Amino acid sequence: MTSVKELGGEFALIDLIARTLGKSKDKSVVAGIGDDTAVVDFDEKHYMLLTVDMLVEGDHFSRKWSTAKQIGMKAMEINVSDIAAMGGFPKYALVSISLPEYVTVEYVKEMYSGMKSIAKKHNFSIIGGNTTHGEKLVIDVVVIGLVEKERLCLRSNAKVGDLICVTGNLGKSTAGLETLKAGLKGNVKDHLEPECRLKEARIISKHANAMIDVSDGLASEVKHICEMSQTGATVEKKKIPISRNTFNLAGKLKKDAYDFALHGGEDFELVFTIPKNKLKKIKTKCPITVVGKITSKKQGVWLVDGKLENHKTKPAKTTKQNRKQKTPLGGGYDHFKQF
Amino acid sequence: MTSVKELGGEFALIDLIARTLGKSKDKSVVAGIGDDTAVVDFDEKHYMLLTVDMLVEGDHFSRKWSTAKQIGMKAMEINVSDIAAMGGFPKYALVSISLPEYVTVEYVKEMYSGMKSIAKKHNFSIIGGNTTHGEKLVIDVVVIGLVEKERLCLRSNAKVGDLICVTGNLGKSTAGLETLKAGLKGNVKDHLEPECRLKEARIISKHANAMIDVSDGLASEVKHICEMSQTGATVEKKKIPISRNTFNLAGKLKKDAYDFALHGGEDFELVFTIPKNKLKKIKTKCPITVVGKITSKKQGVWLVDGKLENHKTKPAKTTKQNRKQKTPLGGGYDHFKQF
Repeated sequence: MTSVKELGGEFALIDLIARTLGKSKDKSVVAGIGDDTAVVDFDEKHYMLLTVDMLVEGDHFSRKWSTAKQIGMKAMEINVSDIAAMGGFPKYALVSISLPEYVTVEYVKEMYSGMKSIAKKHNFSIIGGNTTHGEKLVIDVVVIGLVEKERLCLRSNAKVGDLICVTGNLGKSTAGLETLKAGLKGNVKDHLEPECRLKEARIISKHANAMIDVSDGLASEVKHICEMSQTGATVEKKKIPISRNTFNLAGKLKKDAYDFALHGGEDFELVFTIPKNKLKKIKTKCPITVVGKITSKKQGVWLVDGKLENHKTKPAKTTKQNRKQKTPLGGGYDHFKQF
Repeated sequence: MTSVKELGGEFALIDLIARTLGKSKDKSVVAGIGDDTAVVDFDEKHYMLLTVDMLVEGDHFSRKWSTAKQIGMKAMEINVSDIAAMGGFPKYALVSISLPEYVTVEYVKEMYSGMKSIAKKHNFSIIGGNTTHGEKLVIDVVVIGLVEKERLCLRSNAKVGDLICVTGNLGKSTAGLETLKAGLKGNVKDHLEPECRLKEARIISKHANAMIDVSDGLASEVKHICEMSQTGATVEKKKIPISRNTFNLAGKLKKDAYDFALHGGEDFELVFTIPKNKLKKIKTKCPITVVGKITSKKQGVWLVDGKLENHKTKPAKTTKQNRKQKTPLGGGYDHFKQF
């Protein structure tokens, strides 16, 4: 008998499930388990995107820290983020909810108001769902979206030489969560009311090769892109965009803001790769930051603390000097860790 | 602060949620909250059907009584039943799962094997999902299906004069559950491995006016059809199909098998209404039982224990004699009741 931890955590479990289920023989299935959303053929011009995310009280949110409205908003927004990461736009949502006895009707109403506000913001409809009883508050949201076929951004499409870019700032959600956990004061809105980058994604998806949203930290997302695209990558630590607020909170917590950005979860920014010549086109329409470069698979996946090295040559041998500068990019937020 | 019980239970809660969310302004939404599945426009010939059902350990299944495989099978089958009730067929599924630490990897694998076996049986693909950690085992399955536009069976389309019919036998799942709860021996397969009526639904949907699946007992389902169709109905108690096994189990339990059929949950048979002249056409292709008749709204919704009365006249005044024979059809399985 093997525990999920012994197997290797969340991603090992997803692998096992994907192997158990096997590949679909249905030709309309373009992408199954393994990307931000499932992708199926819809019509001549569009693919349909299907995603689902389950939030469990105590593991993904705390009623101590979040209002009912914030919980509803977050449950919806994180699914829209998955649709955005594929380059698409949301159309419909379904909500399943398990309610413990201590949750009042007024609380339920507030949660659904929160969900509705996100549906309104992003112009889609909540069309169904399911309510049931359970010992813990569990919210499971499905979002169905569409994407123009030529704008579908899979994780698996990064090309050697692509720039790795991100929207917004990273580490902000974990900084907020850690501040709440430590009982400190500070601006924790980025944790309680995360906002995904749907508008930006719709611009970026015209030009990007690969895209993913940051739900498990930059390191984990870049590694996903590299694994799926069969490439390497180098990320420059100093280029990772981190807000002044995140640095302040990290300072109070005596923790490293870069660690939050690389290994924290739930920022819901976008990480994407583009050919160099597309950079200007995107930059004029939405602010993005270049944080690294896609390299060949044999060059590996590295975090560089210093100047970006020349990737035309093999990685230099580890010397006393560059040992400090270059470390394998690894780790990520594991949703099997508890609060 | 109001509890769900004070509000009036599960259906009152669904009403409140539907009111909170409001009607979608999206013209592609054909039916939102209130039927077995949501219905949206898909292509010239088809509507798309979307349904979701959450199963919580301790409330909807018990690991004491069901194997991992049976739990996976049930989680999938009950969603296919919702698609069947609309007259359609399943195409894709997504699975969200929350795993407590005591659930092993081998157990997870067995559950997904169970789900896969149902997908194979009904010829659809499991294309995505979500895994996370939680204190209780929670499985939430989304099934997306299609239905030919002319075969869509809403709850709201019953016509006065229609016959009310059911597939298979009723009360069987509750008989099994009660037997397990009482620690008695008996054939409880109908509870542990419920089978929906997809094949039958595909035949019936060519002819039926309204259809629903039996997840909360016959009484509740007929009342749903009447409420949504603005009709009345009379159900003849003695015509309700109940298997010998259910009568046997009810006998051992000293309970009423008709009570299981009328107010028990999870039989996943179909209740549907058809014009009289369609009865023969369906009967030659699949076994069904006529249990009653759709009447006008003002005639009310009744259970008759005896001969079906003449609905061309107003219901007779209650006399000492017919008091025994005729009772308002009411109640139903409430998923907010615990094991």
